[in-house]
Amino acid sequence: MVVRGAPLIGCTAAYGMLLAAWETKTKSHTSSLKFIKQAANKLKSARPTALALSYAVNRMLTRAETAPPSEKGSDSILQALKSEADILFQEDLQANRKMADWGATLLPNAATVITYCNTGALATSGIGTALGVIRKAFHLGKIKKVYACETRPYLQGSRLTLWELMVENIPSILITDNMAAHLMKTEKIDAVLTGADRIAANGDTANKIGTYALAIQARHHEIPFYVVAPTPTIDLHISSGEEIPIEERSPAEVTQIGSQHIAPQRAQARHPAFDVTPHKLITALITEKGILQPPDSTSIAKLNGLK
Amino acid sequence: MVVRGAPLIGCTAAYGMLLAAWETKTKSHTSSLKFIKQAANKLKSARPTALALSYAVNRMLTRAETAPPSEKGSDSILQALKSEADILFQEDLQANRKMADWGATLLPNAATVITYCNTGALATSGIGTALGVIRKAFHLGKIKKVYACETRPYLQGSRLTLWELMVENIPSILITDNMAAHLMKTEKIDAVLTGADRIAANGDTANKIGTYALAIQARHHEIPFYVVAPTPTIDLHISSGEEIPIEERSPAEVTQIGSQHIAPQRAQARHPAFDVTPHKLITALITEKGILQPPDSTSIAKLNGLK
Repeated sequence: MVVRGAPLIGCTAAYGMLLAAWETKTKSHTSSLKFIKQAANKLKSARPTALALSYAVNRMLTRAETAPPSEKGSDSILQALKSEADILFQEDLQANRKMADWGATLLPNAATVITYCNTGALATSGIGTALGVIRKAFHLGKIKKVYACETRPYLQGSRLTLWELMVENIPSILITDNMAAHLMKTEKIDAVLTGADRIAANGDTANKIGTYALAIQARHHEIPFYVVAPTPTIDLHISSGEEIPIEERSPAEVTQIGSQHIAPQRAQARHPAFDVTPHKLITALITEKGILQPPDSTSIAKLNGLK
Repeated sequence: MVVRGAPLIGCTAAYGMLLAAWETKTKSHTSSLKFIKQAANKLKSARPTALALSYAVNRMLTRAETAPPSEKGSDSILQALKSEADILFQEDLQANRKMADWGATLLPNAATVITYCNTGALATSGIGTALGVIRKAFHLGKIKKVYACETRPYLQGSRLTLWELMVENIPSILITDNMAAHLMKTEKIDAVLTGADRIAANGDTANKIGTYALAIQARHHEIPFYVVAPTPTIDLHISSGEEIPIEERSPAEVTQIGSQHIAPQRAQARHPAFDVTPHKLITALITEKGILQPPDSTSIAKLNGLK
């Protein structure tokens, strides 16, 4: 959890692959490749849910494997991986900007929005996914107020998102996750915006635990629910959300806040770190290539040029 | 928050009235009554949402006002109030048992249930409301597992409910509030059980913030949503939930856990302490007088013998 946020996990893993190559720079091309493959497996197993991780590592691995053998140890691999990591970083940076441009068009003026977890500069290489859209819309004068859900148990909302919003002087109010439905009923909420860790080929979306609950509540109140994620988040190999692996993290993150116990000793707790929102609850998926409204097998296949 | 839980607030306020009378025991009947009326207003303004508070205080006040004047200062008032407070306590105790008996009949065998906030022995004078039902059902061998929501921001679930469940050896698992929807989708959940702070004449129910979100999620998954509350919770003077006053508590309870800050300094936060669940989302209201399925104007009027 030193690095979190799917796109940033991807970028960091790319440079992790570069560091692995660096460790073997005095070795032969072959033994360097062998070590890099091991590093790839280790990196990919770090977090099971975010697709950006395996996407970035696989691209780096392919690039290493296709680098021409050089006489000076692993020099050509190093050069190739440096270039590929920089490309991945730049792609995410550009994707952030494009998603923000697309997404801001969906919001009305004087919008009050709810956002979840942290999807900003602390989760990506640029301005963010969902928070990038909010940032852009704010600079266009379209944001009146942002409700940031604290995002239990790890509190990415209160610890990271609120900080990002305050730094930018975006009017922001922290709420506990269970207050969102009450606000949807008692105030005018214009949209809910979240990121994604992995999206199935039919649009089902895995994201931080609690996202699914928000999507149900948004639907109940007929409020648009937008997922903002770059296309490397889409996993065409899985047909629906049921196949997405859900990481189960330590129950101590539920029973303690930092070192402070908030439950009785020996209390049992569950900690699924993600949940899956069925595509039918998602009003639109905002990618760097455009807006999928609604996201489903057809619109996703088209986006990827498969149909 | 030294005393919390609507029924327990009511019982405590009743004995609070008795203590007020005690303070005036050397005074005349008239000046004692005057002081008791002031105490009644002070007690009733302590918490705006729980109806049990004004219900208990008003009954005590009426009893004081109808006590025969005695020559020995406020002796007759003291006796009357001691008797009335004990009656209120016993009524709540009995109501707990009856609600548990009724409620347990609604649960299937080997039930997995979700409960919210604390509605047990730490919130009532007896075994509890929603937690009383769970306790009874467990002793009848009908409970397989209880998921207790932590109930942000005050964590009554993790701090109180889990403790009560563990003391009784009821299989219990703590979850953050935002995990409930994920469990409803991925496991077989048989019922959601909560208490209530105030119920309007049409069945709309004010309860701890987050209850409404759970009710929406239960409906989305077609899971029964049961409210367990004694009849003094029902406010026949208000026709719908929109008229129920919602207490706004300190934002510091959202931005801090105990003394530990979990949000940036100067972060703004909201803290509505309750929300209102429309009666249409409530499968049944379990009272000591019987089960209202569904709770609505008609069934509530009948229960109170008004039609």
